[in-house]
Amino acid sequence: MSATMSRITLARRPDGSPVPEDFKLENAPLPSPEQGDVLIEVTHLSLDPYMRGRMDDVKSYAPSVDIGGTMTGQGVGRVLESRADGITKGDIVTGMTGWASHACLPASDIRRLDADLPPSTALGVLGMPGLTGWVGLHKYGRPQKGETLVVGAATGPVGSMVGQLAKSMGLRTIAIAGGEEKCRLATETFGFDAAIDHRAHKDAKSLREAIAKAAPDGVDIYWENVAGKLLEAVLPLMNVHGRIPVCGMIAWYGGDNIADTNQLPSLWRSVLVKRLHVSGFIIFDHWNEYPAFLADVGPKVASGDIAYLEDVAEGLKNMPQTFIEMLKGGNVGKQIVKL
Amino acid sequence: MSATMSRITLARRPDGSPVPEDFKLENAPLPSPEQGDVLIEVTHLSLDPYMRGRMDDVKSYAPSVDIGGTMTGQGVGRVLESRADGITKGDIVTGMTGWASHACLPASDIRRLDADLPPSTALGVLGMPGLTGWVGLHKYGRPQKGETLVVGAATGPVGSMVGQLAKSMGLRTIAIAGGEEKCRLATETFGFDAAIDHRAHKDAKSLREAIAKAAPDGVDIYWENVAGKLLEAVLPLMNVHGRIPVCGMIAWYGGDNIADTNQLPSLWRSVLVKRLHVSGFIIFDHWNEYPAFLADVGPKVASGDIAYLEDVAEGLKNMPQTFIEMLKGGNVGKQIVKL
Repeated sequence: MSATMSRITLARRPDGSPVPEDFKLENAPLPSPEQGDVLIEVTHLSLDPYMRGRMDDVKSYAPSVDIGGTMTGQGVGRVLESRADGITKGDIVTGMTGWASHACLPASDIRRLDADLPPSTALGVLGMPGLTGWVGLHKYGRPQKGETLVVGAATGPVGSMVGQLAKSMGLRTIAIAGGEEKCRLATETFGFDAAIDHRAHKDAKSLREAIAKAAPDGVDIYWENVAGKLLEAVLPLMNVHGRIPVCGMIAWYGGDNIADTNQLPSLWRSVLVKRLHVSGFIIFDHWNEYPAFLADVGPKVASGDIAYLEDVAEGLKNMPQTFIEMLKGGNVGKQIVKL
Repeated sequence: MSATMSRITLARRPDGSPVPEDFKLENAPLPSPEQGDVLIEVTHLSLDPYMRGRMDDVKSYAPSVDIGGTMTGQGVGRVLESRADGITKGDIVTGMTGWASHACLPASDIRRLDADLPPSTALGVLGMPGLTGWVGLHKYGRPQKGETLVVGAATGPVGSMVGQLAKSMGLRTIAIAGGEEKCRLATETFGFDAAIDHRAHKDAKSLREAIAKAAPDGVDIYWENVAGKLLEAVLPLMNVHGRIPVCGMIAWYGGDNIADTNQLPSLWRSVLVKRLHVSGFIIFDHWNEYPAFLADVGPKVASGDIAYLEDVAEGLKNMPQTFIEMLKGGNVGKQIVKL
């Protein structure tokens, strides 16, 4: 066992889109587990858009990462040493390891994985993104057979879960994705009824026309992953009593590129006139639903009824660049980094 | 019985805030009721902010008034002639009479009033505005004892209903109103815990500081009657899991005065980070709740437990000017026009 570990810390707060200099690769002594703790050798790390928010020093739903602190995140790994009951050396577990080669966590904060499925699924289709799509669609999307759903970032782990669940419930599903390859995956791998390449539409109006063509009966559920141009495009197409679960707004995460001025009154007017229900939600409020989610979706993933895609990068030192590219939509499927 | 009636029609569509030239006073032959119809001599007419929306030729929740058509609205009156079972001459009834001295309506579209209460209450505290406040607060505000509510246009018939119901359920209630007189009425007549004069605050930041002082535990329910500066002021004060029933946006009805550009991303970010529930609603979807509302609130109005204020103008010909002034907040209490 090496006596040191590696980790990636926040070197400074990004100004808009993150750049490599915002991160720092460091070595640190390997911690020793105390009573009740478990030492994990991390094998896979998750990269997720929410991490961008943690880099800012603003009040949010979770604490910011401190300057010099380890970047937050979920990982999967192998137990090197356990001082907790019920977990033994060699177990495969998941927990909030941070961007690091090793983590020492209380046993109560980690979960042992089933041996039947690839461990990386615990970070995507059967992890936080999958649960996000499952909880949010059922609770805030309230899908009804025959309705139409539009989702952005549709080949990502949240969007693809939302689309597949909605399709299985009898909805017409429309994917918005960036590029021809992702559009092909949306229909072929994830079964969307239609896929629209937002990069092929220079403005909201043109994108709106394409969505309107694919959604002849209007839009009942707009799953908000993206905001920006897509929000502006979809809003006028919403049906009366439509629902907008607000899960993310990746178009605005960079802090720049907020092109659309003065859209608030038209949004608010739509909310009133169409009696829309807009519900922000954060998966951290819904962890108690995890067992029900796993019981429902786990077998469907095992059987192949729910498909998933992973984009696997390699090496802790490559995490910042992989994260930066992911925020620009460079990944295809759930972004994983294998150590 | 005079053989003619008077009515006010839409002469042209307003450009922003309505002006007198947008309306026209006309005479017309008095209609004769057919089988099933009732001829009503109107005694009181209602003026409500929603009427502004009907003057525009845009898709909304209800049809626009046509150019040359009678302005839409609810009235109360005395039955002059009935050709319907169960309604007799002299009955006091209410229905969608339009801005007119007389109306001929199917008996199924009118409702006979209790003789115990002043007929004008059917247009305000026990009519559409009262029902709006009652339904929206219970269904979309979901008030809990100990929470804090902020409502704009607080001495209006919707705002005062919302405030009184919330107060009776144990909430801290904060009125936003225009001018010292309305603020005094808010606390003295309607029992709000605090009242803030938005005219005393030149910008959203200053208004926000005043609200923050009155709401030391943050805001759980923001009842949206107003939008504009007030929305911008309240949003950062919302608590996690807050609710925003969107009932109106009188600040933006004029089509002008939309000062705040680029507020959409910050709104959307608040919705996500604070997990807000924003629900647009329109009372026309909830008429089936009217009997339950009347059973609950009617006795409280009769006993004086729920207070109401009416601002009574006189004469059909004065309706346009009264309406124009009401949209600027010139009225105190529910705006009625007595014929």
